[in-house]
Amino acid sequence: MSAMEIIDRITSEGGKMLLFESFTGGLVAPENDSNLWNYKFTWNPRNVVVAGQGGAAKFIQEGTYKYIPYQKLFRRTELVNIDGYGTFEVYPNRDSLKYRDAYGLQDALTLYRGTMRRVGFSKAWQMFVLLGLTDDSYTVENSEGMSYREFINLFLPYSPTDSVELKLRHYLKIDQDDIRWGKLLVLNLFDDTKKIPIKNATPAQMLQYILEDNWTLQKDEKDMIVMYHKFGYEIDGQKKQIDANMVVLGENQSHTAMAKTVGLPVAIAALHILKGNITTPGVQIPIKKEVYGPILSELKSYGIKFREYEVPYLGYNPNSIGN
Amino acid sequence: MSAMEIIDRITSEGGKMLLFESFTGGLVAPENDSNLWNYKFTWNPRNVVVAGQGGAAKFIQEGTYKYIPYQKLFRRTELVNIDGYGTFEVYPNRDSLKYRDAYGLQDALTLYRGTMRRVGFSKAWQMFVLLGLTDDSYTVENSEGMSYREFINLFLPYSPTDSVELKLRHYLKIDQDDIRWGKLLVLNLFDDTKKIPIKNATPAQMLQYILEDNWTLQKDEKDMIVMYHKFGYEIDGQKKQIDANMVVLGENQSHTAMAKTVGLPVAIAALHILKGNITTPGVQIPIKKEVYGPILSELKSYGIKFREYEVPYLGYNPNSIGN
Repeated sequence: MSAMEIIDRITSEGGKMLLFESFTGGLVAPENDSNLWNYKFTWNPRNVVVAGQGGAAKFIQEGTYKYIPYQKLFRRTELVNIDGYGTFEVYPNRDSLKYRDAYGLQDALTLYRGTMRRVGFSKAWQMFVLLGLTDDSYTVENSEGMSYREFINLFLPYSPTDSVELKLRHYLKIDQDDIRWGKLLVLNLFDDTKKIPIKNATPAQMLQYILEDNWTLQKDEKDMIVMYHKFGYEIDGQKKQIDANMVVLGENQSHTAMAKTVGLPVAIAALHILKGNITTPGVQIPIKKEVYGPILSELKSYGIKFREYEVPYLGYNPNSIGN
Repeated sequence: MSAMEIIDRITSEGGKMLLFESFTGGLVAPENDSNLWNYKFTWNPRNVVVAGQGGAAKFIQEGTYKYIPYQKLFRRTELVNIDGYGTFEVYPNRDSLKYRDAYGLQDALTLYRGTMRRVGFSKAWQMFVLLGLTDDSYTVENSEGMSYREFINLFLPYSPTDSVELKLRHYLKIDQDDIRWGKLLVLNLFDDTKKIPIKNATPAQMLQYILEDNWTLQKDEKDMIVMYHKFGYEIDGQKKQIDANMVVLGENQSHTAMAKTVGLPVAIAALHILKGNITTPGVQIPIKKEVYGPILSELKSYGIKFREYEVPYLGYNPNSIGN
């Protein structure tokens, strides 16, 4: 909803929106960012495993529609930087055009939404995509009691002699010094003693089990929400851009940044409705100033606020060219 | 049904079936095999474009289930040779286990079905898969009147300067001397004057239009059906294998090998039912000797017959290892 505040401000000053890009990620706080994937689950793990499936990602760039199929989604990342928190990568969300009308962006030339991860996550995740581990459309024979190693071998060619390790490295072209290999090892993927206990499981459910075994946020660990928005606009014949970002840290396993950023706006809105400050009837998304105004200003007292920067307008991210 | 004849013969002699692999392809006769893809449509083009979609290919190799996702299907080919017709490649069909019970192959260790193409077709087709051109799950905005070049550009990153050609070559890692590039050129994929006339089309429908523009069997051109079966079995403690293959050539655009091989068995069966030679009631698949026996012997008079070879039993195709 802070995106809406900035869009309202730009257009009320006579600016014409040209570009809106919006990226969000639920990640681990730097102090607990301890695994090679730089990732732990802080949201529904299932949604993470099946993310991006079911049709292509769709967005508009400089007036042209663009489509990215699932098989290339995690290879079409771009990089963004957040002061004090380093570099992140963004992979495209499925539908970037969803909020076009609600946000009043019918004439924008570029509309792009994405998910933020630490650098290298997506390229490693692509291994799961290419193996077929994220497929949720069929069940595996005899999934119950299958070892992690047997699970991986389901997706590799049969050999009477070659190891699962070598077959996988060859299949995915993983060199000796490729950090993706380390990322597979820390998940115990080649362990023949660790078993998956799920009956009639899909590959995605089996992968989720393995990941939860490794990526669970521990009791005293903190999560981190990152957001990055880009607003491109034209005013007085000049093209300008504002980039805005936000980082929210959690306190522990249950008081997460995810819970704060999702729960506080709802709680604040409820109080404002009870106090009669918000009078718009019916179910509302927070795109009206009457709604987002008081919520955003109160969220600031909880440390939930955006930092804004003026940057040159480009219309596209040169990091993404040719990916 | 000739597969059934050979399986019946092996088991009636006391053999125990260990392996059954069955490959089929509808292709162009060598004398009309004139394009770089070595392919023209001789069957429902739509089925060719969406082939392999909707869940992983599933088969059994030496007692182990194997799954190949769509994004790797066309990279997991193996090679087979047919005397007098050269080398073909095989990509896996979606479900190799469909006929397991009907064929009495419950105990076979290896069950694998595939589609035959000329060598190099699948690796080139993979370009369409990676671009997302075979997707049939969503419609493209403004498809009607879109040029072939604009269509391809939908799936490539935006650039204010780089050409569609270079973006595609970089995206798919196509070197100067890669024959896949020639395969794209002969389809006129970068032509900005050729237009797709379909409203609200899916990428798959748009690709099909482009391919039909190039891959239509001409009036005097002949098609070709190829089949290749492998039968592995154990008898008297020894493992043996029979490979059988068949090639049928068409006569022209309407009297195709496809029409012959599909139509003649049905016609012959109908006559045998009318004459009272086939008495099994109800709808039957041709796995009973009473049904396939007379049909197969009559098909021979039309030149539709298998050649059989004894080969060493391996249990797997070493060409497919590590793909």
